[in-house]
Amino acid sequence: MAIRYPNGRSYVGREPNKKPNRQKELTYSNRGMTLEEDLNETNLYYLEKAIAVIHKKPTPVQIVQVDYPKRSAAVIKEAYFKQASTTDYNGVYRGRYIDFEAKETKNKTSFPLSNFHAHQIEHMRQVLKQDGIAFVILRFSLTDEIYLLDALHLLYFYNQKDETRKSIRKSDIEKIGHSIKIGYHPRIDYLHIVDAVYFSDKL
Amino acid sequence: MAIRYPNGRSYVGREPNKKPNRQKELTYSNRGMTLEEDLNETNLYYLEKAIAVIHKKPTPVQIVQVDYPKRSAAVIKEAYFKQASTTDYNGVYRGRYIDFEAKETKNKTSFPLSNFHAHQIEHMRQVLKQDGIAFVILRFSLTDEIYLLDALHLLYFYNQKDETRKSIRKSDIEKIGHSIKIGYHPRIDYLHIVDAVYFSDKL
Repeated sequence: MAIRYPNGRSYVGREPNKKPNRQKELTYSNRGMTLEEDLNETNLYYLEKAIAVIHKKPTPVQIVQVDYPKRSAAVIKEAYFKQASTTDYNGVYRGRYIDFEAKETKNKTSFPLSNFHAHQIEHMRQVLKQDGIAFVILRFSLTDEIYLLDALHLLYFYNQKDETRKSIRKSDIEKIGHSIKIGYHPRIDYLHIVDAVYFSDKL
Repeated sequence: MAIRYPNGRSYVGREPNKKPNRQKELTYSNRGMTLEEDLNETNLYYLEKAIAVIHKKPTPVQIVQVDYPKRSAAVIKEAYFKQASTTDYNGVYRGRYIDFEAKETKNKTSFPLSNFHAHQIEHMRQVLKQDGIAFVILRFSLTDEIYLLDALHLLYFYNQKDETRKSIRKSDIEKIGHSIKIGYHPRIDYLHIVDAVYFSDKL
């Protein structure tokens, strides 16, 4: 029951959402958008502007049982998630093959290597061997900082993975990665960085 | 009930599967392998030999309900097939982006354009604009003939699609497409054709 106060208005607590709103204007962290949603929006922007053709791959699913009801769509009644054998995003930009994985962490000072599966690491190694462009997009979600890190560097750190090396220090990512500014439209303009890192000799 | 004949053996009809077996040795059509299985085998061959990194994309599925039973894997209990917004296969070969769709028909003299969705056609157009390599692999399953047809040619025929144009004549495919020989390992060596069609000036 709402308590009525002398001014005749119900008590609704403090002015709703004031603080979150103010923060919303300052950073992106409270928008409730995931890295995946931001990248999908960005890729759609690239597609519509004919800048690049980059899509997220569908989630791999092992389908076990499908029902075919009369006069309606087939329904998958039993299926299981499969581990992906590749990274999540790929496509073509300026004639080159682009391939990347996007991950976020709530850690403040390092990025855990456990975010990457051996299959994905192996896939990136294979792509580099075919002269494709491969990288990861890393987001520190608490501070909403985003970096592009070339797959070669990721492979370097991953190969050291053992009892002592379980993550990449943020200070290392700041040094050898490339900060991606968060924008409005597109939200994560990573191709701006790709231009500088992979096409600068061709400009 | 099996009828026993004077020689004491049950009648089992004519010598089982004699004719199909003979055909099996002559052509691939009775192996029971689909075009998709053959291409997956081929792509695995390319991957293992470090020739190219080309994967089939997972089937896109809209997941509605997932159960998380204790101590076992998550089970998808309700999901629906979604229409793909891209072609099925893509990857990287010799630094270039490769993108294709594979389709088969039981028609003998033409390839129905209804095999291709508007989304896929639009995707191929976008890939060509980014200087990617895009084509279709077409199989006439009754004769087990396979052709590579550049996406530009497919777009040309698709743009004519109307009341009169519903398919591509096989004679046209023979003229402007490129026949792919069926082999043992890999089964459909389409990169051999890609070399000739897209890289010949670079050789």
